[in-house]
Amino acid sequence: MNTVVGVIGGGQLARMMVPPAINLGLQIRVFAESEGSPAQIAATAVGDYTNFDSVFAFAQGCDVVTFDHEHVPQAVLTELVRRGINVHPRPEALIFAQDKLLMRERLAELGIPVPGWARVTNAAEVDAFLTEYNGRAVAKTARGGYDGKGVRVITASAEVEQWLTALAPGEALLLEEFVEFRRELAQLVARRPSGDSVLWPVVETVQQDGVCSEVIAPAPRSVGRLADLAAQIATDIADGLNVTGVMAVELFETTDDRILVNELAMRPHNSGHWSIDGSTTSQFEQHLRAVLNLPLGATGMMEPWSVMVNVLGGPEVGGLPSRYARAMDTHPTVKIHSYGKESRPGRKVGHVTASGDDLAEVAYQARGASAFFQH
Amino acid sequence: MNTVVGVIGGGQLARMMVPPAINLGLQIRVFAESEGSPAQIAATAVGDYTNFDSVFAFAQGCDVVTFDHEHVPQAVLTELVRRGINVHPRPEALIFAQDKLLMRERLAELGIPVPGWARVTNAAEVDAFLTEYNGRAVAKTARGGYDGKGVRVITASAEVEQWLTALAPGEALLLEEFVEFRRELAQLVARRPSGDSVLWPVVETVQQDGVCSEVIAPAPRSVGRLADLAAQIATDIADGLNVTGVMAVELFETTDDRILVNELAMRPHNSGHWSIDGSTTSQFEQHLRAVLNLPLGATGMMEPWSVMVNVLGGPEVGGLPSRYARAMDTHPTVKIHSYGKESRPGRKVGHVTASGDDLAEVAYQARGASAFFQH
Repeated sequence: MNTVVGVIGGGQLARMMVPPAINLGLQIRVFAESEGSPAQIAATAVGDYTNFDSVFAFAQGCDVVTFDHEHVPQAVLTELVRRGINVHPRPEALIFAQDKLLMRERLAELGIPVPGWARVTNAAEVDAFLTEYNGRAVAKTARGGYDGKGVRVITASAEVEQWLTALAPGEALLLEEFVEFRRELAQLVARRPSGDSVLWPVVETVQQDGVCSEVIAPAPRSVGRLADLAAQIATDIADGLNVTGVMAVELFETTDDRILVNELAMRPHNSGHWSIDGSTTSQFEQHLRAVLNLPLGATGMMEPWSVMVNVLGGPEVGGLPSRYARAMDTHPTVKIHSYGKESRPGRKVGHVTASGDDLAEVAYQARGASAFFQH
Repeated sequence: MNTVVGVIGGGQLARMMVPPAINLGLQIRVFAESEGSPAQIAATAVGDYTNFDSVFAFAQGCDVVTFDHEHVPQAVLTELVRRGINVHPRPEALIFAQDKLLMRERLAELGIPVPGWARVTNAAEVDAFLTEYNGRAVAKTARGGYDGKGVRVITASAEVEQWLTALAPGEALLLEEFVEFRRELAQLVARRPSGDSVLWPVVETVQQDGVCSEVIAPAPRSVGRLADLAAQIATDIADGLNVTGVMAVELFETTDDRILVNELAMRPHNSGHWSIDGSTTSQFEQHLRAVLNLPLGATGMMEPWSVMVNVLGGPEVGGLPSRYARAMDTHPTVKIHSYGKESRPGRKVGHVTASGDDLAEVAYQARGASAFFQH
């Protein structure tokens, strides 16, 4: 009688799926990489997600298997599907979040606006691209990058010499136009296998050293054309790639008023953490509903504005709770989230969200509360 | 480094403390009565809460011990305190939620408005009370009653003959004036050991066969005198009894415009379930903050109105999730909560909450969604 959702990966995204699973009376089981993961409370297996047998043993008791991250190899995913496991998102969709080159190729086919790009395998191709794009480009490894890793701004092919040398046969690097952007945005969408999808308001994301530091929902000055464009792009991608579950589309708003797709994440995403406290249906509840092919929940905002600030690093000793007495005292309206992770410089160990009808006040509350947890 | 909260009792109240504990990065451990309890995901011990050794073994690893119910014997509680366990609420406060006679005596001392009452041990005293109160009274066992159990409306002493006969030496029954009430209200309060307390808006509670079926927050037509009275009463009781954690004060609004205290619950309470989705800080998060002596969170409402409807009994087969496809399809804004309990007639197996700015619409949504889960 129990509906069992299996999640591969025990990070904070899996952790944040647990509260809505409890609320909805769904049984959630997590396949974690190690003991003491952020999703420990729901971890029923610890193992290597690249090992098919371990993952299959875990998956067999689950009504659906979904993900905390995009790193499960295609070979494992496709074999799970072949053996009858109900996997969402499907491997054929997830591949586009795993491989940035495939993503760029497919988005181009779908007519989605993307920065100028090229698939390169040698220094001559890099130099040609640099010449075409005014001597500057963004180089990305096709696989494995996240939070600024595997991404480099270059002005000469020598700067990616090591990456080029390391390419296996058939592999390539992605080069992208260095986009002059006004700001970064993200559009979150959830889609069920039936094809229904819902959108949250487009948000503004602020990065610091390549890592998201703050999210403002909705993005200021986004009503109208900009919101419509972001919504259309995310819906076209979700439909075009047959996405199931939550997907985040990271966008550039360029200085010449274009909206271009930067990255895709096919899972709940940092740009949607505000929705836990700021939306009728959080991205985590919605992801559970979507992968179970249940009707999607309303995505309206509880208050006109929400601001989420990441806690990066956090207190070296005692974790976030060691600072609650002071942070809660001065910020009683702020919602604090701690991921139960050890402190490490720059690591995402928690976040805080404030909501209300005055953006300046909301941002002040969120930034003020988060400051108690920095260092 | 982890802050550990221990909860005695594995019911839905303990279950609903788990999501805020996860959000705040607190470790929550539950001492459950049996395997497969609603709070199973956090259950680290299964045992008998009347057995001191079992409870003490559980309590030793906890920074604070609190409760899902009020049934832990005073002997166990006081010995825990004597051995240095940090228990909240304190046994000296909890006794007034355990023993209705003591509660009536103490509230009378504090000058809190209560129905007419008497402590009776024999038929003659019952008859005298009935004569004084127009031939009708409410008889209550001092201990062990809840959800309408241990409560009986009587017109003759013969109707409580068995209860009188069963009284042990020193025990007594509570007789209360049969109050002609317009409606029932509840005032939720949270208080920390430091003495700070916060209130949520007073709510209207609707009972069905002695069990809460629906809660409207705030109580309609409660602004002004009525809200002030309810707030003052709850604050006076919380301070007077040195309550720590969440307390619910059940109130009668009489046909002659008095507000009288009916019952006390010294824990999160059914009348506050709406706060999970309808208030900045839910009663469950607040209870954790209060028993840890952390600053209390804001208790403002997310929307002008919230209506919570209990699911009593629930689907005989498949539980609430078996009805999600239909309920979620027609009620996308409603928040559904399932306690993971087996169906049984009249049993509280879940609840739904709707919020918005039009009470009629909010009530329609909550009642409409809950109807999918009845039977």
